[in-house]
Amino acid sequence: MSQSINIAVIGATSNVGEALVELLEEREFPVKDLHLLASSESAGQSLSFRGRQVRVRSLDAFDFTQVQLAFFAAGSEVTRAHHERVVAAGCSVIDLSAALPLEQAPCVLPELGAEGLPALTTPWRVSAPTPSAVACALVLATLSPVLRPEQLQVTAMLSISTLGRSGVQELARQTAELLNGRPLEPKTVDRQIAFNLLAQVGEVDDQGHAQLEKRLAAEIQQLLSLPELPVAATCALVPVFFGDSLALGVYADSAIDISAVQQLLEVAQGIELVEAGDYPTAVGDAVGQDQVYVGRVRRGVSDPRQLNLWIASDNVRKGAALNAVQIAELLIKHYL
Amino acid sequence: MSQSINIAVIGATSNVGEALVELLEEREFPVKDLHLLASSESAGQSLSFRGRQVRVRSLDAFDFTQVQLAFFAAGSEVTRAHHERVVAAGCSVIDLSAALPLEQAPCVLPELGAEGLPALTTPWRVSAPTPSAVACALVLATLSPVLRPEQLQVTAMLSISTLGRSGVQELARQTAELLNGRPLEPKTVDRQIAFNLLAQVGEVDDQGHAQLEKRLAAEIQQLLSLPELPVAATCALVPVFFGDSLALGVYADSAIDISAVQQLLEVAQGIELVEAGDYPTAVGDAVGQDQVYVGRVRRGVSDPRQLNLWIASDNVRKGAALNAVQIAELLIKHYL
Ligand SMILES: NC(=O)c1ccc[n+]([C@@H]2O[C@H](COP(=O)([O-])OP(=O)(O)OC[C@H]3O[C@@H](n4cnc5c(N)ncnc54)[C@H](OP(=O)(O)O)[C@@H]3O)[C@@H](O)[C@H]2O)c1
Ligand SMILES: NC(=O)c1ccc[n+]([C@@H]2O[C@H](COP(=O)([O-])OP(=O)(O)OC[C@H]3O[C@@H](n4cnc5c(N)ncnc54)[C@H](OP(=O)(O)O)[C@@H]3O)[C@@H](O)[C@H]2O)c1
Repeated sequence: MSQSINIAVIGATSNVGEALVELLEEREFPVKDLHLLASSESAGQSLSFRGRQVRVRSLDAFDFTQVQLAFFAAGSEVTRAHHERVVAAGCSVIDLSAALPLEQAPCVLPELGAEGLPALTTPWRVSAPTPSAVACALVLATLSPVLRPEQLQVTAMLSISTLGRSGVQELARQTAELLNGRPLEPKTVDRQIAFNLLAQVGEVDDQGHAQLEKRLAAEIQQLLSLPELPVAATCALVPVFFGDSLALGVYADSAIDISAVQQLLEVAQGIELVEAGDYPTAVGDAVGQDQVYVGRVRRGVSDPRQLNLWIASDNVRKGAALNAVQIAELLIKHYL
Repeated sequence: MSQSINIAVIGATSNVGEALVELLEEREFPVKDLHLLASSESAGQSLSFRGRQVRVRSLDAFDFTQVQLAFFAAGSEVTRAHHERVVAAGCSVIDLSAALPLEQAPCVLPELGAEGLPALTTPWRVSAPTPSAVACALVLATLSPVLRPEQLQVTAMLSISTLGRSGVQELARQTAELLNGRPLEPKTVDRQIAFNLLAQVGEVDDQGHAQLEKRLAAEIQQLLSLPELPVAATCALVPVFFGDSLALGVYADSAIDISAVQQLLEVAQGIELVEAGDYPTAVGDAVGQDQVYVGRVRRGVSDPRQLNLWIASDNVRKGAALNAVQIAELLIKHYL
C-alpha cells in the first residue's frame, strides 16, 4: 500500500525515539497520525514533527486499535510487557529492543530488499537488528559474491549511548569528576567508564556469553541465512558518547581477492569505504551519517583466507533508528 | 654471575624509563652504577635511586665501555642510531623500542625461564616484546599444555600512553577542551582521540598492516615457537591514559576444555584470573600491577574449538619496564 498510516513511536523521549521521529519526517514516510509514547513521567513533553508540536503520551493507557505500525524503542522490558496487546489490537510491530525471539520476530536488513523479507501475516512483528549486527551483516552481505565466511570474530567497541541517555550522562559526569580531581562515584555503570574500557555489557550466562553477544551472533546468522556460521563476539563499552567501532575478522573458505572486496565495498549502497592508508572513526566520520564506514581492509599477513576490517557506525542513527525506518519503508510496500 | 653490574637506562625521562629505574630498585637488581641517559634537553634533570638523586646525562656523548647492560627506552630511532656503538663498546642491549629485527635481537618472555632463552654471546641484543605480545604470549604459553592454536585474532585496544608522554598530554588536553566547549585542535595525533577510537597506530604498508601489528604477530610467533601460526592483529588507540585491553580469539586444533583452561590460568605465575561473571579492566585492575589480568574466558557459542578471552595489562609496567627487568634478571644468570 502507499496510503498514509498511523504510527506509534514507543520510547519517543529516548535518543533512538527522537531520531525515529526526525527520520520519519526527513524521509517523508507516509505518516497520517503520529503517536508519541513514553512512560507516564514524560507525558506532557512534546516533540516537533512536520512543523507542529506533538505531545508525548503515556504508553500504559494508549489504545492501539487505530494504529497500523508501532516502533518499540523503550527497552526490552517495555516490549515484553506490551507487544502482545499491541498486536492483538491489529497493529504491526518493529522491535528495536532485541526483546522478541528471532523465531517470533525475524530480523530484517533493509539493504537486502524484498528478497531478504521473511513471510509475514499482518499484524506482524519484526526485529530491527542490533547496531553491530546491522553493520556486520551489511558488510558481509555486500561481500557475499566473493566471500563465503567460515567463521567470524567480532570485537564490538560500543559507545556508552548503548546504555541510553543515562549512560551518556554517566560518562560526562565521570569524566568531569576525574578531570577536576574529585572522587569518582559510579552510578549507571558499576565502575569507572571514563578513560577506561568495560569488557562486558550486562550479565553473562553460565558459559560466559552476554545476552547482547548471543543476540548479535544469532542476528548475523539469520540475516546472512547462514544459521551454522560460528560467530565469536565480544561486546565492550568504550568511553565514546556516540558511534560504535567494530573490528571484524572473517575466515573464508578460500583465499580472499582483496581488490574484489574493495570494489564491492566501494559501490555498495549504505557503505562508505575509506581509502587505504586512512581509516574511519566513530566520532569523525560515522556519527550523524546514514552510511556504515569501512576501512583498514586487509588480508591476513600470513593467511590469505583471513580478512580483517574496521567498521564505524552511528549506533543511534544507522544502527537503530534509520535502519528501523528503512525496514518500515520496505515492509509497508508488501505487508500493510 | 651474581655480582653487581653497571647499567644504563636510555630514555630515563620517559614513563617507561622511570618505571625501569623504580623496578631496578624495588626488585633489588644487582646494580653497581646506574647511568641515566636521555636527550641533551633533559641533561641536568635527576631521578631518585636507592635514596640518592642520579643526574640524567646526554646519550650522545656517553661512553658505554664501563657499562655491561643498556636498556633502550627512547624510541626506535634512538635505538637504531646508537645500538651498534653500544654493543661495540662491549655492552649488552635490551631493546624496548621494537627497533631491532627479531633475527638480530630475539625476543624473550621471562616467564618461560631458561628454556625460553635463545643462544646468545656477550655482548648480546635481545628485544623486550611489545606489551600486547607480552600479554598474549604469556596467556598462550600458560595454556600450551591444553591448547594448540591454529589461528589467533587479536584486537588490541591500546592506551594513549603507547605514544609516550606527549600522547598522555594530548588526551588530557583534548578532553578538557571538549568538556569546556572549546574548539578541538589535534596535535600529537592528527584527529580527535578524546571520546573517540583510532583504528590505526602509525602508517600502514601497502597491504594495510601497521608496523606494530606485524611486530606483534612476529613476536607472538617467535615467543611461542610457532613461526607459522596465523596471527590477525588490529591495534587501535583508545581514550584511556594507561593500561591496554585485548580481545583475544584463539582457534584451536581441537575442542577446548574450558575448565582445564581456567585451572591453568588460575595457578599461572604472572597472571591474575578474574572470576567468571566479573571482568578485569585496565584502569581498575591492571594499572600499577605486575600481573596480566584475564577474564571473560569462554568457548565459542557454536564452535567448541573457539576460545575467547579479555586481557587487561599495564602497558608501561608489566608490558614494558617490568618485563624488561625480568628479562635482565634471567639473562644475567646465564650470559653476563
Ligand atoms: N542506544 C542505542 O545505541 C540503541 C541502539 C539500538 C536499539 N536501541 C534500543 O532503543 C531503545 C531506546 O534506547 P535508548 O538507548 O535511546 O534508551 P533510553 O535513553 O534509556 O530511553 C528509554 C526510553 O524508554 C522509555 N520508557 C522507559 N520506561 C518506560 C515505560 N515503562 N513505559 C513507556 N516508556 C518507557 C523512556 O521514556 P521516559 O523518558 O518517559 O523515561 C525513554 O523514551 C531501547 O529499546 C534500546 O534497546 C538502542
Ligand atoms: N609507552 C608504552 O606503552 C611503551 C611500551 C613498551 C615499550 N615502549 C618503548 O619505551 C620507550 C619509551 O616510551 P615512552 O612511551 O615512555 O616514550 P616518551 O614518553 O615519548 O619518551 C621518550 C624518551 O626518549 C628520550 N629521547 C628522545 N629523543 C632522544 C634522543 N635523541 N637521545 C636520547 N634520548 C632521547 C626522551 O628523552 P627527553 O625527555 O630528553 O626527550 C624520553 O626519555 C620507547 O622506545 C617505546 O617504544 C613504550
